[in-house]
Amino acid sequence: MKFGGTSVANIERIRNVAGHVRREVDAGHEIAVVVSAMSGKTNELVSWVKEAACGTRNGPVYDQREYDTVVASGEQVTSGLLALVLQNEGLAARSWQGWQLPVSTDGAHGAARIAAIDGSAIVKAFEERREIAVVSGFQGIEPLTGRISTLGRGGSDTSAVALAAAIRADRCDIYTDVDGVYTTDPRVVPKARRLDRIAFEEMLEMASLGAKVLQVRSVELAMNHKIKTYVRSSFDDPANPKPGTLICDEEDIVEQEMVTGIAFSKDEAQITLRRVADKPGVAAAIFTPLADANINVDMIIQVVSDDQLTTDITFTVPAGEYERAMVILEKARDTIGYARIAGADDVVKVSVVGVGMRSHAGVAASAFRALAQRGINIRAITTSEIKFSVLIDAAYTELAVRTLHSLYGLDKS
Amino acid sequence: MKFGGTSVANIERIRNVAGHVRREVDAGHEIAVVVSAMSGKTNELVSWVKEAACGTRNGPVYDQREYDTVVASGEQVTSGLLALVLQNEGLAARSWQGWQLPVSTDGAHGAARIAAIDGSAIVKAFEERREIAVVSGFQGIEPLTGRISTLGRGGSDTSAVALAAAIRADRCDIYTDVDGVYTTDPRVVPKARRLDRIAFEEMLEMASLGAKVLQVRSVELAMNHKIKTYVRSSFDDPANPKPGTLICDEEDIVEQEMVTGIAFSKDEAQITLRRVADKPGVAAAIFTPLADANINVDMIIQVVSDDQLTTDITFTVPAGEYERAMVILEKARDTIGYARIAGADDVVKVSVVGVGMRSHAGVAASAFRALAQRGINIRAITTSEIKFSVLIDAAYTELAVRTLHSLYGLDKS
Repeated sequence: MKFGGTSVANIERIRNVAGHVRREVDAGHEIAVVVSAMSGKTNELVSWVKEAACGTRNGPVYDQREYDTVVASGEQVTSGLLALVLQNEGLAARSWQGWQLPVSTDGAHGAARIAAIDGSAIVKAFEERREIAVVSGFQGIEPLTGRISTLGRGGSDTSAVALAAAIRADRCDIYTDVDGVYTTDPRVVPKARRLDRIAFEEMLEMASLGAKVLQVRSVELAMNHKIKTYVRSSFDDPANPKPGTLICDEEDIVEQEMVTGIAFSKDEAQITLRRVADKPGVAAAIFTPLADANINVDMIIQVVSDDQLTTDITFTVPAGEYERAMVILEKARDTIGYARIAGADDVVKVSVVGVGMRSHAGVAASAFRALAQRGINIRAITTSEIKFSVLIDAAYTELAVRTLHSLYGLDKS
Repeated sequence: MKFGGTSVANIERIRNVAGHVRREVDAGHEIAVVVSAMSGKTNELVSWVKEAACGTRNGPVYDQREYDTVVASGEQVTSGLLALVLQNEGLAARSWQGWQLPVSTDGAHGAARIAAIDGSAIVKAFEERREIAVVSGFQGIEPLTGRISTLGRGGSDTSAVALAAAIRADRCDIYTDVDGVYTTDPRVVPKARRLDRIAFEEMLEMASLGAKVLQVRSVELAMNHKIKTYVRSSFDDPANPKPGTLICDEEDIVEQEMVTGIAFSKDEAQITLRRVADKPGVAAAIFTPLADANINVDMIIQVVSDDQLTTDITFTVPAGEYERAMVILEKARDTIGYARIAGADDVVKVSVVGVGMRSHAGVAASAFRALAQRGINIRAITTSEIKFSVLIDAAYTELAVRTLHSLYGLDKS
């Protein structure tokens, strides 16, 4: 069971968490709980780090190992408090920090990846004392240096799934402030429906494409280790919880629809290079300097220019990297050889996801027609086996999402 | 160098701490810094623990191991932040948690005692990289269980002195919100003077008797390991600090006065049992049940009662234990055999401290006369080699302290 920051925001909310834990214990389960920092605490700690590190000497660069030491304290507090609340309810419980289990990570402090989790102490405590493990999420230890590491924001989901794999859990329940995964964002489409089940691959696409229910890395881990993962609400009455959404193998979903959900991401910016010489090595000339600057390029389209001799190359980058990317490309103008550079950051990527697309042709084509009928211009398209994405003007986001949600029959209950 | 909670209350104050550290580094010293939690943080964490543990099942009793896990996070934050600020000033620095060095303690969670500190990693880092160690005070690890332990409130002073002993430091500077040890509380006696030096034994008495500058345990440790300890102000200009007070061996104080200081403690309550049978074993009957309840008995006076057949026994207990002690003694009335019980918690213990008393007779007698001349009734007296204490009505506290301060020539500068 994993509980995020809003689910443990204060002691009253932590008592509610204990209610959910008790229900599962009463149902005969052995439980490990992964917790985040109380909501707001991580932001407070991060702001102190930035204030401490801001100065003339190092600029915005600071020692990520100290960042991790400071920020990991947030989860430490929650784990101790939940253990106390569970004990107070008469349940055996103890807190575990990342370094105590240990949760071993690589040395990429601030955004570390879990290398291994030793869950043996937790399993032993279950067996000997039926003791509930309350584990601080988001954190681990770099075993060579013995320093505290953190997985980066949202890393507690990953901690939970990795721990579930380590102790061979039957399932991993991620409690959050929504009651499951929806066909699309209900704030945009009021008719959006909660999905009972979604395939790992679909969830991975949805998470990558802007649905913020689960961290991408946690879905990858769940898929690789085949951990049945429930997304459910911690705000339910613990005695009478709603079902949530099960993320599972494709084969476990009996009635698979063609389209499962519509995701969208406003965190996109488009860059177009006009009249690029159509010769070998030009793609490398464009994308190598961006890669060197750690800027992730997503949709790439190449079309013949008006002059029939050169090509126009359009691609997207994260909105936060837009200005940096423009500067890099302007500097590389002579190396690349282009006539003009243009960009836009008022764009949105709308994606249609569903494993059913594998066996159905024409799914994307119907979307292009429907969007055209609404006068929505498509700036770029990418497709993969189980999804396709269109880049459009941000002003049309809601219209496009609603149009596609209806088109694929997701409105019907 | 040790900095308490008010000295690290926010990033601005932590930058000021870094200024003190830089001055000592520039003077050619190798530095380890021990830090407390930012002021207010420990109280916040403790209040959450109490809220988490307060319920019908366990009452006010809770798992001290979880308390330690939660509360130790406060120092963890400060150590990381100070390391970042020092790095930002161009100094090599890193944070160390209790479990990382390790600081090994016994298993008395919530009030643990340090068993050993391994300072070798700190010394190595000094030598190899001139790296300043920023150590979280107040915390350690219980090595058998691997759980985080804390030393109890004020324990950071003890951490600092114990670390100074472990790394064979030349001295231990305790930075606090006062600029040294005074002849008495300057809020009571405006003429109170800062002492340049005070002997370990005197400081131990002053700390035990109510002067709150240093924790008693830290003075004991400093005395046992002969660690020269400075008490000084973190609120000074780092570039131009005031001297503070050196706590040192008696032999290092050239001009020893007869009396060094006047301490007083309002944390006292008096209990008198009237007409106790004057027979063997009666003291055990009174004090054993109190000891069993962990109530510390201090001043004890036994005088023959009015009836010349029985005795009256008067003693003091900490004010916070007064009501509990009264209940225990009323329950034990038949076992003890007394006629009446009386108590008062509006009393104060005033103590006169000075190693010079060893070689001067009549020091206490002059105090009794001076207090009698002011009409102050003495309820009880205790003496030891280097101090004597009188128990008086709390209303006379200021008058008594000022009277004694003048009497022993402490007013003169």
